[in-house]
Amino acid sequence: MPAPLGFTGAWLDRADQLRTDPEAFATATADPRARCLTLDGIDFVPGDDGTGLRWELLDPADARAPMLLGRDERGIPYFVREPHPAQRIDARSRTVMRLLPLLSAQDLALYGGARSLVDWHARHRFCATCGSPTELFRAGWGRRCGQCRAEHFPRVDPVVIMLAEYDGRVLVGRQRQFAPGMFSALAGFVEPGESLEEAVARELFEEAGIRVSDVTYVASQPWPFPSSLMIGCRARAEGSALTLDETEIEAAIWVDRDEVRAALAGDMDAPFLAPPPLAIARHLLEDWAA
Amino acid sequence: MPAPLGFTGAWLDRADQLRTDPEAFATATADPRARCLTLDGIDFVPGDDGTGLRWELLDPADARAPMLLGRDERGIPYFVREPHPAQRIDARSRTVMRLLPLLSAQDLALYGGARSLVDWHARHRFCATCGSPTELFRAGWGRRCGQCRAEHFPRVDPVVIMLAEYDGRVLVGRQRQFAPGMFSALAGFVEPGESLEEAVARELFEEAGIRVSDVTYVASQPWPFPSSLMIGCRARAEGSALTLDETEIEAAIWVDRDEVRAALAGDMDAPFLAPPPLAIARHLLEDWAA
Repeated sequence: MPAPLGFTGAWLDRADQLRTDPEAFATATADPRARCLTLDGIDFVPGDDGTGLRWELLDPADARAPMLLGRDERGIPYFVREPHPAQRIDARSRTVMRLLPLLSAQDLALYGGARSLVDWHARHRFCATCGSPTELFRAGWGRRCGQCRAEHFPRVDPVVIMLAEYDGRVLVGRQRQFAPGMFSALAGFVEPGESLEEAVARELFEEAGIRVSDVTYVASQPWPFPSSLMIGCRARAEGSALTLDETEIEAAIWVDRDEVRAALAGDMDAPFLAPPPLAIARHLLEDWAA
Repeated sequence: MPAPLGFTGAWLDRADQLRTDPEAFATATADPRARCLTLDGIDFVPGDDGTGLRWELLDPADARAPMLLGRDERGIPYFVREPHPAQRIDARSRTVMRLLPLLSAQDLALYGGARSLVDWHARHRFCATCGSPTELFRAGWGRRCGQCRAEHFPRVDPVVIMLAEYDGRVLVGRQRQFAPGMFSALAGFVEPGESLEEAVARELFEEAGIRVSDVTYVASQPWPFPSSLMIGCRARAEGSALTLDETEIEAAIWVDRDEVRAALAGDMDAPFLAPPPLAIARHLLEDWAA
């Protein structure tokens, strides 16, 4: 059985019916078994044995609002606290990436969702419509303006990430900030007014100058840096000539199945370094090479 | 050849390289052929013959910032203006839905993207991070805070919409506000921390009480009310017993292929009224029935 895609497989039922039922929510927060996820800013804190997430009992003396992550199969509710108002957060910091191997796939998925949620609150304390302060509602799954009553909900930003295929090869590219030698699938945010398929075609043309004639879906995963939904696709290129957008892509190469397999195996003489296991780009390469 | 999915197939190249190149952008706005889309709030205004979109030459005397929609194959740039600050917009209003048949599929797609963009600006004049006023940048494809310099980008909200299948039937449901007799595919927003497949499974369990064992992707389309990206899927249900969330779903029924075909054909004695042609739900039903 293949490993689950990174950041998928969270082990809690989100129990969304509690979000809009104040009585049920109050009962959950009063449950003596209720747990709260320990965070340092938006980074997780490993458990006592150096692995896993750290949970504490939900402290009724903490003034920050509890946000409902969900319930386990025993009915125990799990929360995370609204961030401190003074908390400054660099959502692009990937320091935590180095600690992620300490988590099981299921804990990683749960943490990823909690991280996106807490980060969103920290950066959305004011109403985008009128500029007034907002307050958390729906058990943490939204904020409402105290002035104009506009409601705001956590962002999920769809990103297409894709392998273009031509004559038995796929296109991989690298951004300047990638680790030396690493190449990955090209990617970009979906814009208002386009389908996934149109976004794939636009990005491949913008970044690499290639036209594609059809697009197929492969897989998806959340990517909590800060709130992307990665949607992995394949596309058939109409030619192999490249015109790179060098502000986005430093270099790009067409690689065949043997070269992809060598990269995935970590061979020293592979023509490129494959993206890491948590990235859906690696899954796309594995799927294509298989 | 099947009709294109609603709101897809816009006929402009988005020309994103102009967004970050002030000189090229100034050249485009100074092009004497430059066009500007006429809107009434965020609704389109039909052309002189009562159909199509209405375009005017870009008026240099208009103080509102021009936002770049794209360029056509002759290089003519097309814009839409930032909305008036005093403009109040009800993005949920679907009055415009009655006028949509006046547009070709390609104009409809272009309008949908422009509508989402203009609506986003109208509701995001302030910085969600610090509450200060923001200014348009990137040729209309973002806003930046004058105070804390935070950058904000137009939202695209992914929504899963899906047909659960069991024993030769699919599940369709209705919300209270639907037209009488109409049933459609169930749907819901993707949340932080879940893949598309997980969102499909969660929504089907929350709304209808059914568990699904696998999920496949079918198609996608933008839905500019205000900024959804509809991602159409199928899933295999493990059973047919329903437990409806009646705050979301008023009724749900399992229908077989003959019943779906009758509904799509508009038969008076079909067991339900099919969703309208622009909706991806109709495409999902057509795809399944075929």
